[in-house]
Amino acid sequence: MESKNNPPGDLVDNGKYRVETDSMGSVLVPAERLWGAQTQRSLIHFAIGDNRMPKQLYHAYGYVKKAAAIVNAKVGKLSEDKANLIIQAADEVIEGKLDREFPLYVWQTGSGTQSNMNVNEVIANRAIQISGGTLGTKNPIHPNDDVNLSQSSNDTFPTAMHIATIIALSQQLIPQVQQLMDLMWEKAKSWSHIVKIGRTHLQDATPLTVGQEWSGYVAQLHQALERLHQAKKELYELAAGGTAVGTGINTPPNFSTMIAEEIAKLTNHPFITATNKYAAQASLDAMVQASASIRSLAVAFIKIANDIRFLGCGPRAGIHELQLPANEPGSSIMPGKVNPTQEEAMLMVSIQVIGYDNAVAFAGSQGNFELNTMRPIIIYNVLQSISILSDACKSFLQYSIEGIQLNQAKIDQYVNRSLMLVTALTATIGYDKASEIAHLAFKQNLSLKEAAIQSGYIDEIEFDRLVQPEQMVGNPDEDLIQLTKKMDPNAF
Amino acid sequence: MESKNNPPGDLVDNGKYRVETDSMGSVLVPAERLWGAQTQRSLIHFAIGDNRMPKQLYHAYGYVKKAAAIVNAKVGKLSEDKANLIIQAADEVIEGKLDREFPLYVWQTGSGTQSNMNVNEVIANRAIQISGGTLGTKNPIHPNDDVNLSQSSNDTFPTAMHIATIIALSQQLIPQVQQLMDLMWEKAKSWSHIVKIGRTHLQDATPLTVGQEWSGYVAQLHQALERLHQAKKELYELAAGGTAVGTGINTPPNFSTMIAEEIAKLTNHPFITATNKYAAQASLDAMVQASASIRSLAVAFIKIANDIRFLGCGPRAGIHELQLPANEPGSSIMPGKVNPTQEEAMLMVSIQVIGYDNAVAFAGSQGNFELNTMRPIIIYNVLQSISILSDACKSFLQYSIEGIQLNQAKIDQYVNRSLMLVTALTATIGYDKASEIAHLAFKQNLSLKEAAIQSGYIDEIEFDRLVQPEQMVGNPDEDLIQLTKKMDPNAF
Amino acid sequence: MESKNNPPGDLVDNGKYRVETDSMGSVLVPAERLWGAQTQRSLIHFAIGDNRMPKQLYHAYGYVKKAAAIVNAKVGKLSEDKANLIIQAADEVIEGKLDREFPLYVWQTGSGTQSNMNVNEVIANRAIQISGGTLGTKNPIHPNDDVNLSQSSNDTFPTAMHIATIIALSQQLIPQVQQLMDLMWEKAKSWSHIVKIGRTHLQDATPLTVGQEWSGYVAQLHQALERLHQAKKELYELAAGGTAVGTGINTPPNFSTMIAEEIAKLTNHPFITATNKYAAQASLDAMVQASASIRSLAVAFIKIANDIRFLGCGPRAGIHELQLPANEPGSSIMPGKVNPTQEEAMLMVSIQVIGYDNAVAFAGSQGNFELNTMRPIIIYNVLQSISILSDACKSFLQYSIEGIQLNQAKIDQYVNRSLMLVTALTATIGYDKASEIAHLAFKQNLSLKEAAIQSGYIDEIEFDRLVQPEQMVGNPDEDLIQLTKKMDPNAF
Amino acid sequence: MESKNNPPGDLVDNGKYRVETDSMGSVLVPAERLWGAQTQRSLIHFAIGDNRMPKQLYHAYGYVKKAAAIVNAKVGKLSEDKANLIIQAADEVIEGKLDREFPLYVWQTGSGTQSNMNVNEVIANRAIQISGGTLGTKNPIHPNDDVNLSQSSNDTFPTAMHIATIIALSQQLIPQVQQLMDLMWEKAKSWSHIVKIGRTHLQDATPLTVGQEWSGYVAQLHQALERLHQAKKELYELAAGGTAVGTGINTPPNFSTMIAEEIAKLTNHPFITATNKYAAQASLDAMVQASASIRSLAVAFIKIANDIRFLGCGPRAGIHELQLPANEPGSSIMPGKVNPTQEEAMLMVSIQVIGYDNAVAFAGSQGNFELNTMRPIIIYNVLQSISILSDACKSFLQYSIEGIQLNQAKIDQYVNRSLMLVTALTATIGYDKASEIAHLAFKQNLSLKEAAIQSGYIDEIEFDRLVQPEQMVGNPDEDLIQLTKKMDPNAF
Repeated sequence: MESKNNPPGDLVDNGKYRVETDSMGSVLVPAERLWGAQTQRSLIHFAIGDNRMPKQLYHAYGYVKKAAAIVNAKVGKLSEDKANLIIQAADEVIEGKLDREFPLYVWQTGSGTQSNMNVNEVIANRAIQISGGTLGTKNPIHPNDDVNLSQSSNDTFPTAMHIATIIALSQQLIPQVQQLMDLMWEKAKSWSHIVKIGRTHLQDATPLTVGQEWSGYVAQLHQALERLHQAKKELYELAAGGTAVGTGINTPPNFSTMIAEEIAKLTNHPFITATNKYAAQASLDAMVQASASIRSLAVAFIKIANDIRFLGCGPRAGIHELQLPANEPGSSIMPGKVNPTQEEAMLMVSIQVIGYDNAVAFAGSQGNFELNTMRPIIIYNVLQSISILSDACKSFLQYSIEGIQLNQAKIDQYVNRSLMLVTALTATIGYDKASEIAHLAFKQNLSLKEAAIQSGYIDEIEFDRLVQPEQMVGNPDEDLIQLTKKMDPNAF
Repeated sequence: MESKNNPPGDLVDNGKYRVETDSMGSVLVPAERLWGAQTQRSLIHFAIGDNRMPKQLYHAYGYVKKAAAIVNAKVGKLSEDKANLIIQAADEVIEGKLDREFPLYVWQTGSGTQSNMNVNEVIANRAIQISGGTLGTKNPIHPNDDVNLSQSSNDTFPTAMHIATIIALSQQLIPQVQQLMDLMWEKAKSWSHIVKIGRTHLQDATPLTVGQEWSGYVAQLHQALERLHQAKKELYELAAGGTAVGTGINTPPNFSTMIAEEIAKLTNHPFITATNKYAAQASLDAMVQASASIRSLAVAFIKIANDIRFLGCGPRAGIHELQLPANEPGSSIMPGKVNPTQEEAMLMVSIQVIGYDNAVAFAGSQGNFELNTMRPIIIYNVLQSISILSDACKSFLQYSIEGIQLNQAKIDQYVNRSLMLVTALTATIGYDKASEIAHLAFKQNLSLKEAAIQSGYIDEIEFDRLVQPEQMVGNPDEDLIQLTKKMDPNAF
Repeated sequence: MESKNNPPGDLVDNGKYRVETDSMGSVLVPAERLWGAQTQRSLIHFAIGDNRMPKQLYHAYGYVKKAAAIVNAKVGKLSEDKANLIIQAADEVIEGKLDREFPLYVWQTGSGTQSNMNVNEVIANRAIQISGGTLGTKNPIHPNDDVNLSQSSNDTFPTAMHIATIIALSQQLIPQVQQLMDLMWEKAKSWSHIVKIGRTHLQDATPLTVGQEWSGYVAQLHQALERLHQAKKELYELAAGGTAVGTGINTPPNFSTMIAEEIAKLTNHPFITATNKYAAQASLDAMVQASASIRSLAVAFIKIANDIRFLGCGPRAGIHELQLPANEPGSSIMPGKVNPTQEEAMLMVSIQVIGYDNAVAFAGSQGNFELNTMRPIIIYNVLQSISILSDACKSFLQYSIEGIQLNQAKIDQYVNRSLMLVTALTATIGYDKASEIAHLAFKQNLSLKEAAIQSGYIDEIEFDRLVQPEQMVGNPDEDLIQLTKKMDPNAF
Repeated sequence: MESKNNPPGDLVDNGKYRVETDSMGSVLVPAERLWGAQTQRSLIHFAIGDNRMPKQLYHAYGYVKKAAAIVNAKVGKLSEDKANLIIQAADEVIEGKLDREFPLYVWQTGSGTQSNMNVNEVIANRAIQISGGTLGTKNPIHPNDDVNLSQSSNDTFPTAMHIATIIALSQQLIPQVQQLMDLMWEKAKSWSHIVKIGRTHLQDATPLTVGQEWSGYVAQLHQALERLHQAKKELYELAAGGTAVGTGINTPPNFSTMIAEEIAKLTNHPFITATNKYAAQASLDAMVQASASIRSLAVAFIKIANDIRFLGCGPRAGIHELQLPANEPGSSIMPGKVNPTQEEAMLMVSIQVIGYDNAVAFAGSQGNFELNTMRPIIIYNVLQSISILSDACKSFLQYSIEGIQLNQAKIDQYVNRSLMLVTALTATIGYDKASEIAHLAFKQNLSLKEAAIQSGYIDEIEFDRLVQPEQMVGNPDEDLIQLTKKMDPNAF
């Protein structure tokens, strides 16, 4: 708050505010807050919308600051005392204890400098507090000269982005997809011999088993998980140590390697220093690719959720092979209606992820010279995508997949009436005659068998021998075995 | 071809090439072609992909060059003789007689200068030809000093973009959508009293008539047409006269107004000069908005095409309320299969339009200072969208909508079995009891009537009085009347 | 909370919860909250991410419920007493007094039924409270039978979407853009005779005035505003009265017309009933088009913000024609650095709007049969876009545009050194010779005048007569007059 | 042509057409063409736009048909004679000799069945021709029963998509990017010690070398190449053998494994059979991910091309550190103008790739049940993206990168005048005092040194010792070594 009406002195005197300073002068900050002048300026200048920089980004930044302090102390640039104070405060950031001290909006400076300074200021003031000093004095800890030592926003913000994304992928998205996949896999196995009609172009086709159909969903999810693991590999490369433009100005020798090692140790993820800091700071290509891999998962979910809601449509005027659990009244006007709401939520979430990704690719392309200044939008969108997809997985698992049951009567009925079982005849009578039979059955509303016999191309005994739905589904057991092999978790 | 191996003299001597020059020097051009040095340079430097600048853009450019010649002559900047030669050649461009002379790729200079010079060179050489001169001499007509007189690519290229888009919308897309809408409207009217089950969330809902459902498609298309008409209004504003940066340097007084009037007269569309040439040359916002309006049509088509293919799915294991025409064998392996292929083509075309539009918005945002240098991508994508959507409409009309028939048996069956007719009871027994009845019917696999009576909340006579599907569809005739009023063509 | 471990009785007895019921049974709800069973179920089943349904949607819903009660009373379907209770509660919803009672997530049922029921439940309970009744008893007001009377989520949710969007456009986005445009217009006028170098393809071009350049920004924004006004026209059409599937089942005669009139009266916006309810409920095309028009504004802002930050780049190694205000320290490592942070925020916001719009178009296409079940994602994204663009406008105006100053020395220097003033010679010596002069100056690092004289094509006196930058900028005053006429506010 | 006016007999009699048949009846086909009835039907029913199914897809299909014939013969389902005929014809397809026989449009059936049947018909007729038979008789080779034996479009079309994409990536895109990267790497190395000013947020920052800056571009391209190699891994998995719905109906045992091995042998790429055919046919996730990886390359190119054109902007009123080659006259009105046209083409191509990818992701999500019927749009867009990006790389290399030269005078001038060299002082005097010096210099238009001395914080000797641009660029040699190690081609 840059007060214009009240004399600042009053506000300070009554204890509601304190004075904080930066290279541009002094600013009043709410007395109970730990942030400093630059955070306060950003709050004033960037009050845009209601999206705040994600807390996960700050937790990740906590690791960066802690690791920097450790390395700075190790190489003798920072005293042990100062380092310990910074580490102690950084630990509180990591643990989320200071979450309320990070109020900034997403839509701020494109480098993320204001959020970096927010971290620097909060850690400095918290360290001052711990050491018994006076907030805002920068003594004994200075936000730039100590907390930000050997660092720039330009290298640390993308470092924090990578760390936050790795943690969110590892702790949220991947485990949730894995659990959902595991449950679907159980379903697939339990239904591995239930023969149902296949559908291609939405039209009746040759049969397969429900388990085979669901194995397709499982295989899609498994492949999506592999892509997420692949995306992580790129994200392990950290920009830290490049400082202002990638040259590492104001860093001690080997700083980039040392801080990456330290971050790896602290987070227990195999981070390494990026080979080329110019690319790591001027582009966000690894984030763009990670976003694309998350999008591929969303693309798979749209297919899966659509299948489930269409297979469940009805109950009396639709396909209704599946019975979805009824979690809530579906309509405010139509009593007794039950709707595929979990699937709808999953569809919307997936489409939103595609929209976020669209913005990520655009923003990722707009770097200039030594910096991409579209960082906040990218980290916000990627963490949003991870968050809503993870939660949607959980909800979808718990309130839909878990309770889905087969409508065996419908499934059998469709198989028995299908005309596409005619495909089993082609090896014997050829495509053209088989086609005639199918058309005959359709036009005269006959069963396939009736039409086949009427056509004269085949007799009843031969028909019964050839047309057995359960013989037309290949080898469901072998299909399961192959996928099981591939999904061996040691594969990652 | 800038020959490095063959002595250029040889190539010229044997008559295969002639020498053309521009401000950078001389270039060999195939002897039978009318283009000049700059076109040839572009062919060499921008051999990217196989997408060529659309012919429609050149036809539109023909109008620009003709109009400029007329105005330049009128104000005394160009002799009548020269003007007449240019007009004669420009007429051939407009009529498409010189289409083979415009070989350039889409992916060229972002201002479209190379295509403008292609037009200038071809008109100059064609005029020279007509006047009995020697190709390449720029005598009596110079591509820059005469054909391009009072013009720049910077103002004429967006002018040609607007003209080409207006013509394509007016002659292709709008009439095709109109025809399709008219046919669907005929269908809607003929089916206005066929009661069918409604579906919300894909689930059975209260009934409506087939005509009401199709009136929704018609209303969507009608609204989409209104948006296209609205988009045209913005496109009528032309940049011509702004020349290099919008100030109109090297133009005579009132040139911008005069050339817009001339173009309006020649094309019979109400073009006017753009109020602000700086915006008209540095942005392509009107094209971005036009693209968005075409996208809205595509969005509507996805809904419509999906509905039709899902309502037609089956024949034995799907909804199959609609019978789509069988135009071709649907499967190479499943004999007798018929698929909703026109709908699939329409879906793909619509999705492609959304993709093109995505690129248009991106490109539209990337102008800098006095110029947007993303013009070729924008005009290519917009004309592509118009072309494929127009053709898809035609195909969809002719090979799907025209031949669609109702499966009355299925339609009746669904209405009769539906549980959502229960909605008609709420006014009498309230939402909660009605809901109980629906659940009872579903769980015990009863008809709604059986469940209603069994519930004790209502007796048979009352049930029969209240639950009459044909009484639950509101007023289909009035619905048609309202939409007819709105679609009065005088509205545009 | 559907408690499984604690006996519900205990929770109720200790006063923390009360029992609420719906057609599926009973649920515990926090005692101090006004919502009912269906809201509580949604909270449990759809705990996805942290995006909540926007409060503006609920305020808009307040108008719908109030208008419905008025009309229901007027036609005798609802007693005056009940209507008054509902109206009183609805007024509190409209005024935002009950905002805390609307906790649902965006990612819920695709029809928005859960948010509609949330409103129904809260209004019912609040009305019960006002009347001295017991929460949860549905007496005297029932959420379905009274508050939702003559309505469905299927028609009221899109009605509330349109109302909320109209209000947000009218109260937030349009005024903010207008203010920004007005300020830029002031700047343009004050700089209308400052001659500067133009740039096309980023390269030096012929001159224009700073005012002319800025008039282009103003014209872009003005056109964008016209598109927003156009978008509003479509949004005035309301689905209310179509109920379940568009037929208006369970509504009294003329209900749709009457409720639209009532909403128009209450909101003071010219709402009317949608001509075709089937389209209005099964599609969200008007929202898709509105989103596209907001996107067009974002596209314009990207151009404008990029221009300003590039024209301001430097201070010593860039163009630096503009001096942007220094609001905060720009770098955590480079002391004294000032960055175009407002422009960066505007760019990110605009790209985000494009991403949101991408999801809107996708979702808008995914309707099926009588319903589009992608409503929450669409209203969320559109309101988000409006919110962040509005705030970004305000911030951009206040912290950047307001304080921008010209660097006159640089501006003059660029004009004086430019080679493209050569364009003024073409009318006299032709394009080819003028081109020679420019190349000569560039290659030998001469001034244009030196090169011109050296070329022998023109003498010094003639050069000085022809090459006068201030004579090359057309008519800046006339440009301003034309745009002023167009921007006449009575035009809307 | 289904003639309605001319008696078909006439057309056949005069030799212009012959009769071809399929399961739906007979069709007239141009006598000189090898295609059959289904191709002809598709030409009639799907005349949409001017985009044809890419020839590369047919070449890839040639491998599929050849491999199928080999395996069918091996297992005894097809006679050696028939197999040899098919193989001979398929070889001609592979070699492109029959390209004119594949006329179908992209916008056709979503499964690609019509293109599969086109291949089946052409191979059958060509085989008939070779064997001396009569076209159209299906004797001795039947398009379905022989050429399509053990296959469906549903499994072979995605197989051909993967093969075509692998070949296009391997032969076009990857080598072109590699060449461009190699040349940029040479440039980077040759400029490794040229100190220039860095720019972050477009504003002057600390220095780096030109070689370091370009190493960033190289690193981006290298990472993009790694992603393309990664994408190929997924594409090696082939659907062939799944036939109609993934169960492998009508295939002999082990067919899927055998045909994948055969295709691997024929193409010399390590293709294998897909683990799960249900996913491989019902989704196109591997194609979506490949498209995303191509998009990541486009994203990198936008950054690179923008940098180069902005660093080259001028010549007198811009940054102009780089001198781009002048390939053509840049303006039709401004003589002597040279523009960054190659960069503009690269930008447009890259944005188009992002647009194509947007459509791919959308289409990839729209599969239903056992089939994704959005295949043509996906293969078209992916091959288009590869084609235009490959050609743009080549053009960019040859006509821009190759000829770029440094403007050493400008580069030096910017370094010498920069204020951000102040960063070198922070270790000595702290961030706050350093910041004061920079502001002083800027405000009073002093050199940094003058301001530093005037500030009193540091004396001249100390200043000269600390502020040495060439000491502020880290270790350019080490940077090159690290990247060289990473780019070791054995890494792939």
